[in-house]
Amino acid sequence: MSQFTLIDGKAVSAKILLDIKQEVAQLASKGITPGLAVVLVGEDPASQVYVNSKERTCTELGLYSEKIVLPVDTQQQELLAVVHRLNASNKVHGILVQSPLPAHLNEEEIVRAINPNKDVDGFHPENVAKLTMEDSTGFVACTPAGCMELLKHYNIETEGKEAVVIGRSLIVGKPMALLLMGKQGQATVTVVHSRTKNTSEVIKRADIIIAALGKSEFVTAKDVKDGAVIIDVGINRVEDESNPRGYRLTGDVDFNAVKEQCSAITPVPGGVGPMTIAMLMKNTLKAAKQLENYTD
Amino acid sequence: MSQFTLIDGKAVSAKILLDIKQEVAQLASKGITPGLAVVLVGEDPASQVYVNSKERTCTELGLYSEKIVLPVDTQQQELLAVVHRLNASNKVHGILVQSPLPAHLNEEEIVRAINPNKDVDGFHPENVAKLTMEDSTGFVACTPAGCMELLKHYNIETEGKEAVVIGRSLIVGKPMALLLMGKQGQATVTVVHSRTKNTSEVIKRADIIIAALGKSEFVTAKDVKDGAVIIDVGINRVEDESNPRGYRLTGDVDFNAVKEQCSAITPVPGGVGPMTIAMLMKNTLKAAKQLENYTD
Repeated sequence: MSQFTLIDGKAVSAKILLDIKQEVAQLASKGITPGLAVVLVGEDPASQVYVNSKERTCTELGLYSEKIVLPVDTQQQELLAVVHRLNASNKVHGILVQSPLPAHLNEEEIVRAINPNKDVDGFHPENVAKLTMEDSTGFVACTPAGCMELLKHYNIETEGKEAVVIGRSLIVGKPMALLLMGKQGQATVTVVHSRTKNTSEVIKRADIIIAALGKSEFVTAKDVKDGAVIIDVGINRVEDESNPRGYRLTGDVDFNAVKEQCSAITPVPGGVGPMTIAMLMKNTLKAAKQLENYTD
Repeated sequence: MSQFTLIDGKAVSAKILLDIKQEVAQLASKGITPGLAVVLVGEDPASQVYVNSKERTCTELGLYSEKIVLPVDTQQQELLAVVHRLNASNKVHGILVQSPLPAHLNEEEIVRAINPNKDVDGFHPENVAKLTMEDSTGFVACTPAGCMELLKHYNIETEGKEAVVIGRSLIVGKPMALLLMGKQGQATVTVVHSRTKNTSEVIKRADIIIAALGKSEFVTAKDVKDGAVIIDVGINRVEDESNPRGYRLTGDVDFNAVKEQCSAITPVPGGVGPMTIAMLMKNTLKAAKQLENYTD
């Protein structure tokens, strides 16, 4: 068995949050308090958990936090009015409208209504374009940004390496591919998806695998080159009667099957997951500095 | 020697222009005349040739055409004022500011000033985002759009095929990769660039090669899998004393070296080049229909 590194997203996230906390304290001495507003429509339990965790983290770091909870039957114009108020608020530098929205609402219009300079989720077309154009003033979606941070923190070289991104979603796969092929990554990137024919053969070329397709334990031993680095973005619920909750969480990678082959891997949970909130806080800090014209 | 198809960009372009001409005539009967404005700053000879050719094509197709030639010392505010006037003009549906601009002008600001709904070059961030997000109301840059059209016209299947894009520019490489990996292409796409280590090995996997790196005859026999399809986007000037002009035009692919191996290839000139203007006219037609709320 080769030695392998367990990429500890919890530890990296904690370190980043500590750095942010120190920077927030520094900003406070200049009279700047970064602020994040989170808007939740309806009572989806998972969304409530996310939103509360974001609020708690803001408080821990010394950020100003605003939580706006709206009833499930909120109308488009009411939600737009909330976004407009937050756009105009001097206390709020980052705005996040928790996804998914109830089906009667037009999510695209809501995202477009957010001031791109406060769009810490990185979903506004302006920020999608800035990512594609490699304009570093933009905001990168938190999950792909978190994956890049993990590679950086573990000094995993990406330049000239073969990276395979599995999945082509706008939230993870595409931004991940753009980051890895651009100046930040300098990798040779291949994107694999549902129409790829020789999937296993293609993944096996990878020095770095980013699994983001949302299929439980899709990547297994036969797909992984010896010594590859694996970032597993998947979080899947699989029925499991032996578990008190009735399910267990799995990644898109069969962790136990590949751990003998890879040189480093993120666990699920505890890998990419904890990075998302750290990147959200980092984006909020960046938004505050940009909006307040603060330079270190 | 295997049989191979010479992908005739001139012929395909002529066919598309004929289709556009017929559609323009149809639109005329509804009182709509698509209009294209081309702005040229300075007297760069190559730019003059492009601009004149665009104007001539407009006239041939029955489009309204406006050519604005400004002196080389035009100031940013003056050029912005021209763009604003064209944004407001009811006769103009497409606006193209010929690149490159003189160095004292801020090209990014000019591109952002163009109404994205008239940005037939597809360089505005709004259109870059729409390409990444696969929103078909946007405008795709003419060269990558032209490459996709060539594949389509020759019934070259891309779904599930391995496509290798050489080059990662915002004008060709990246949009090409996004088009090929998205719903239009459904290919398994790899992007090769200056930091790629095993370049030849990677290109040799390709069923479809898109060469867009701007290096004369970079792709040669050893890089090409038997039966591959090659789209050569490069147009390089190579010194050639035997040529009366003192140079000859070459592609990024060594045509003579690979023609025995590939199943189809675009020549240079006469391949991708003629498609660019056809795509510009197609985008102008699309802009006119969208702006005039015309549906077939």
